[in-house]
Amino acid sequence: RIDSARLWDSLEEMALIGPGVAGGCNRQTLTDADSEGRHLFQRWCDAAGMTMGVDTMGNMFATRPGTDPNALPVYMGSHLDTQPTGGKYDGVLGVLGALEVVRSLNDHGIKTRHPIVVTNWTNEEGARFAPAMLASGVFAGIHTEDYAKSRKDMDGLAFGDELARIGWVGSEKVGARKMHAMLELHIEQGPILEAEGCEIGVVTHGQGLWWLEITLTGKDAHTGSTPMAMRVNAGLGMARITERVHQIAMSHQPNAVGAVGQVKVFPNSRNVIPGKVIFTVDIRSPEQGKLDAMRAEVERAAHAVATELGLGCSIEAVGHFDPVTFDAGLVKVVRGAAEKLGYSHMDIVSGAGHDACWINRVAPTVMIMCPCVDGLSHNEAEAISPEWAAAGTDVLFHAVCEVAGV
Amino acid sequence: RIDSARLWDSLEEMALIGPGVAGGCNRQTLTDADSEGRHLFQRWCDAAGMTMGVDTMGNMFATRPGTDPNALPVYMGSHLDTQPTGGKYDGVLGVLGALEVVRSLNDHGIKTRHPIVVTNWTNEEGARFAPAMLASGVFAGIHTEDYAKSRKDMDGLAFGDELARIGWVGSEKVGARKMHAMLELHIEQGPILEAEGCEIGVVTHGQGLWWLEITLTGKDAHTGSTPMAMRVNAGLGMARITERVHQIAMSHQPNAVGAVGQVKVFPNSRNVIPGKVIFTVDIRSPEQGKLDAMRAEVERAAHAVATELGLGCSIEAVGHFDPVTFDAGLVKVVRGAAEKLGYSHMDIVSGAGHDACWINRVAPTVMIMCPCVDGLSHNEAEAISPEWAAAGTDVLFHAVCEVAGV
Ligand SMILES: NC(=O)NCCC(=O)O
Ligand SMILES: NC(=O)NCCC(=O)O
Repeated sequence: RIDSARLWDSLEEMALIGPGVAGGCNRQTLTDADSEGRHLFQRWCDAAGMTMGVDTMGNMFATRPGTDPNALPVYMGSHLDTQPTGGKYDGVLGVLGALEVVRSLNDHGIKTRHPIVVTNWTNEEGARFAPAMLASGVFAGIHTEDYAKSRKDMDGLAFGDELARIGWVGSEKVGARKMHAMLELHIEQGPILEAEGCEIGVVTHGQGLWWLEITLTGKDAHTGSTPMAMRVNAGLGMARITERVHQIAMSHQPNAVGAVGQVKVFPNSRNVIPGKVIFTVDIRSPEQGKLDAMRAEVERAAHAVATELGLGCSIEAVGHFDPVTFDAGLVKVVRGAAEKLGYSHMDIVSGAGHDACWINRVAPTVMIMCPCVDGLSHNEAEAISPEWAAAGTDVLFHAVCEVAGV
Repeated sequence: RIDSARLWDSLEEMALIGPGVAGGCNRQTLTDADSEGRHLFQRWCDAAGMTMGVDTMGNMFATRPGTDPNALPVYMGSHLDTQPTGGKYDGVLGVLGALEVVRSLNDHGIKTRHPIVVTNWTNEEGARFAPAMLASGVFAGIHTEDYAKSRKDMDGLAFGDELARIGWVGSEKVGARKMHAMLELHIEQGPILEAEGCEIGVVTHGQGLWWLEITLTGKDAHTGSTPMAMRVNAGLGMARITERVHQIAMSHQPNAVGAVGQVKVFPNSRNVIPGKVIFTVDIRSPEQGKLDAMRAEVERAAHAVATELGLGCSIEAVGHFDPVTFDAGLVKVVRGAAEKLGYSHMDIVSGAGHDACWINRVAPTVMIMCPCVDGLSHNEAEAISPEWAAAGTDVLFHAVCEVAGV
């Protein structure tokens, strides 16, 4: 079993970097806090005897050598970046749990045939730069590096410039590494495991997503002296489409979700009818058919609302992944490890996107989930118990030992 | 008649200060651009032989002496501040038209019995600091100076600190001046005069307003992994209330308007269900009964939507004025001046709030309106013709001569 106290201490220490305003974290990607978190992770990896490689997207790879010089490495990891009002465990558990696995291997003097690599993927959250899982997406050949580096945040700063600014542009070519397998431990971020009283989620599938950025253009005008009939109100259009997104998701229950998370109103003045609004729709389903149908329905609804209000409407897809099926062999290994360790477990579908979803395209991949309190995530109040963290990390430990060969 | 070319030149010169991004202006109150505009106005007043007084709210008063030492001054003016994406004439025409009246009096060597004062009121727009007409409101005893100075902009900066920073805290006590009368020239900001082919609007009334700032609190949560039934989505609440505001205004046609102009979403991340939204509702009517009814309906609708979605809801009134009836005697004077000059004219109700609406509480007050193209205002494309500007200023000139006694 892994050292639960040491794991918990590391989680708490990392959470001090980029603290939030309500007990959580604001360690958004490519900020100074992100850089500081990377340095701490690197010091811990050094201390555990690993060698760090960094690629030109800032992805970090800490290697513990194996005994077979011809064996491809087994990868574990997740991300250290957070939402602006994020929790302490989303992503971080997957990186520091993987580090704890290596520390435990060291403690027990266990050698593996395959090398083991602990990874921190850059910009998993997609909060600052859309889309999410950007750097694992480049690694997996989904995006070009140029596309990724030109992505802009709300202030117009480019990903490439910000990565250079914080000093984490590495020298490795992105995606050049070959993997024997990749395992990602993550908190569920949903309520199912806790409700079912299960310590371990064996992740068989991940749901697919579309992020649609909708721009509505109307006409700035005075809220007082412009008659109702003359208004071309982009804010009203945004409101109507937000309601339609909700209704569309509700009409596809179960296995469908939809919401508007980000809204920018122009000029955003109390006595000006909004002449322009930019907002993003997030729709998801584990079923390809539903996902495609919802996208078409949202686009139709947006254009219909725009027509009804006389608005211009453009829609850009700023994030997408199809539903994912994880590697059946690795799923069995994870289930077996939970079984052997005596942890209650169930098969589960990931509601969120994860770096593993992209890596699954280039290597056999699987995820392990542990519960979180009230299913709450992307909230500073996100919470897990030390026991849940330990159970997930134990399962990761045993699964990795099996995959890497002890 | 006034000097139309000189008036137009001054309007164009002022518009160079705080230029917008699309041909209009961004000279928001208490910015460096506002200060620069004030300096230009002061230089012009000095050149016209006037003496400047400034009160502790930054209101500017340029005096041309009268012949009767016991006569109270006649005031003319409006505001030089603009919306973030504002026009070149909203407010500015009222100040520079008044200045042109004084220049014309000088040209013709006309002496008046009453002194004449040209005024620039601070923060009429209310774009940066709610409520609108803030400093004329303090002058009229509607707000305390402490209340006004503690108002905060979106970045948390206080009105009092910003006024001091730009160096325009004067020494006069606010509201100490007594007025014989006040006349405000303004563009209509609505479509009626242009549609009716009228050069002059004789403003008999102004409509009343409520600005309601609504704060909805839900729960930040993951857009992917949180089931629809568990969401407490403040953004959806904002969307529903925005639609209800529109419907409520529509149900009170004619003589009612309503919109949401400003929206702040927290944390405003694509994959976070908004846990908090703050937005402002603007509702108006010239009929007291409709205004009161709409306020009650909006508040009821907001609480009902909050209950239906499980949201917290608090509502703060951040701006308010009741419908206004301008001074009947002065209305006659304005109508007579338009008549005498041969300008087409009609009685009109102001759709927007104006400094004159507050000053009307402490002195006989009236407004003169001129058309603007397509009724468009609070938009950088706001436009008027030099002829319209001249007609309004001519009427102001003749009305003031009559009120101030030549
Ligand atoms: N795990 C996680 O929150 N990833 C961010 C991408 C997403 O929104 O699913
Ligand atoms: N005239 C004008 O636009 N005033 C601002 C206050 C209002 O919104 O009516």
